[in-house]
Amino acid sequence: MTPQTTAMTRFDTYLSRINTRLSELLPACFYDAPAVCDAMRYSMEGGGKRIRPVLMMESCRICGGDPEDALDFACALEMIHTYSLIHDDLPCMDDDDMRRGKPACHIAFGEATAVLAGDALLTEAFHTAAACAFAKQHPDRAVEAIALLAELAGACGMIGGQAIDLQSEGQAIPLERLQQMDRLKTGALMKAACAIGAVLAGAAKAQRDALERYADALGQAFQITDDILDVTSDSETLGKPVGSDAQQNKSTYVSLLGLEQARKAAAAYTAQAVSSLGLFGEEAAFLRNLAEQLGNRIS
Amino acid sequence: MTPQTTAMTRFDTYLSRINTRLSELLPACFYDAPAVCDAMRYSMEGGGKRIRPVLMMESCRICGGDPEDALDFACALEMIHTYSLIHDDLPCMDDDDMRRGKPACHIAFGEATAVLAGDALLTEAFHTAAACAFAKQHPDRAVEAIALLAELAGACGMIGGQAIDLQSEGQAIPLERLQQMDRLKTGALMKAACAIGAVLAGAAKAQRDALERYADALGQAFQITDDILDVTSDSETLGKPVGSDAQQNKSTYVSLLGLEQARKAAAAYTAQAVSSLGLFGEEAAFLRNLAEQLGNRIS
Repeated sequence: MTPQTTAMTRFDTYLSRINTRLSELLPACFYDAPAVCDAMRYSMEGGGKRIRPVLMMESCRICGGDPEDALDFACALEMIHTYSLIHDDLPCMDDDDMRRGKPACHIAFGEATAVLAGDALLTEAFHTAAACAFAKQHPDRAVEAIALLAELAGACGMIGGQAIDLQSEGQAIPLERLQQMDRLKTGALMKAACAIGAVLAGAAKAQRDALERYADALGQAFQITDDILDVTSDSETLGKPVGSDAQQNKSTYVSLLGLEQARKAAAAYTAQAVSSLGLFGEEAAFLRNLAEQLGNRIS
Repeated sequence: MTPQTTAMTRFDTYLSRINTRLSELLPACFYDAPAVCDAMRYSMEGGGKRIRPVLMMESCRICGGDPEDALDFACALEMIHTYSLIHDDLPCMDDDDMRRGKPACHIAFGEATAVLAGDALLTEAFHTAAACAFAKQHPDRAVEAIALLAELAGACGMIGGQAIDLQSEGQAIPLERLQQMDRLKTGALMKAACAIGAVLAGAAKAQRDALERYADALGQAFQITDDILDVTSDSETLGKPVGSDAQQNKSTYVSLLGLEQARKAAAAYTAQAVSSLGLFGEEAAFLRNLAEQLGNRIS
């Protein structure tokens, strides 16, 4: 077995645990108005790469923890990522009709139900984190992890990136602002994945710092690759419309630097991610592979 | 000083602590796109009765705790209440232009910013709860309280009530369904206030049970009074449009039972709230007064 096969097998193991657990965690509707619960499940079960929860479980593992201890927090993070996509796709936001190859939540269930389904997923994320078995056993680590999750998902994290995005519409913005936007909009949840994995494992500061540097570089590479795919891919491969950045007049790495330079920037950030994990030695092979595969992804 | 004056003084003391602390807790915007943070502050500082946070601090106190220990959780609960109003007022939801006597968040800041401001307040609520000093000192009580907060604000709580509301639009619904809707939509956060106050104080089960019965009756009385005021009050007194229930063809206590029977039902629930606190003796005078004053409120 090549190292890559080993890594992919582990990815699939995590993926299977995450998808099974997500399905168990989503609330069953006990009243006669199931649309919101149906919409939550529809959007959660809509595929998605599950990169953030996988990152969290593996971050917990390489810091000496049991990845199962991070499973519910990992699912919570994926709920937050999914709610952000539901709200992002709303007519008053990016107004996208397709997501992960199927109609966006507001197309399938209507706008009001999509707003509530997003709200409910965000809320359920914190319920999942606070009510899990690990939180009962290690409440000190759990409150630290919940505070991190909320900080990085909120106005000083992911939502901050969306706020910059919103206030930049139709303008050419400087590269520095684009980087700040990406660091918040995409990077914050990557950082949450790695930092929370470390906190749940009771990691040393140096381990957590290294993982946060990895997450930061990975997030930048990931967002630049997204910008590139929006220009070079097709909607069938991506599962969502292409060309929407240009159509919405959004500044991206490609519009600011050109395709060639954008590719170089993505490769440089990927290399930075790979090199930031030195202190973990061979144990970090999976995370290094993951960074490289995400840099070469086609969807 | 009459007992009522004493009670009102305590209410004002709580109110002042809550408003000061809320202002400190709202995030300062560190990037050049302040609209979302401005909108959060605009809606939080828009007045409001602050009943839920006051209930929480007093519930903590009568269970033997220090109400200051509940202050940050109380602010978190008020953030959740406020986010729910912002999203409720959106064009795709109730489409209300006025709230607490001033333009609704989406009127003042636009729809997209209002969606994000609501999301950010909900997220900040959990940050506030998990990052507070009390959570560091008593992480076991804090995770229990956070789990309760999320459960009662989510699809099995407040959002469930909104889901029923949404799927009942334009229909006459039976009284039983109206009660279930009110119990979730309004009662769930009242219950959160009382139950979390008890949990933070390390209350005995009987104390928490009594407070939950009080919250349940109070929530029903509160919602029926809301229905009544929507018919009998004017928009200047209420700070929001009146007659909107009838206009939106919503079933209410008034439309189902008539004004007279609705008033009787509100009074019966208020009496039930008052009588549920027997085990606290004189210590519960403030909560009994509060129930009576809310039953007699004019806005």
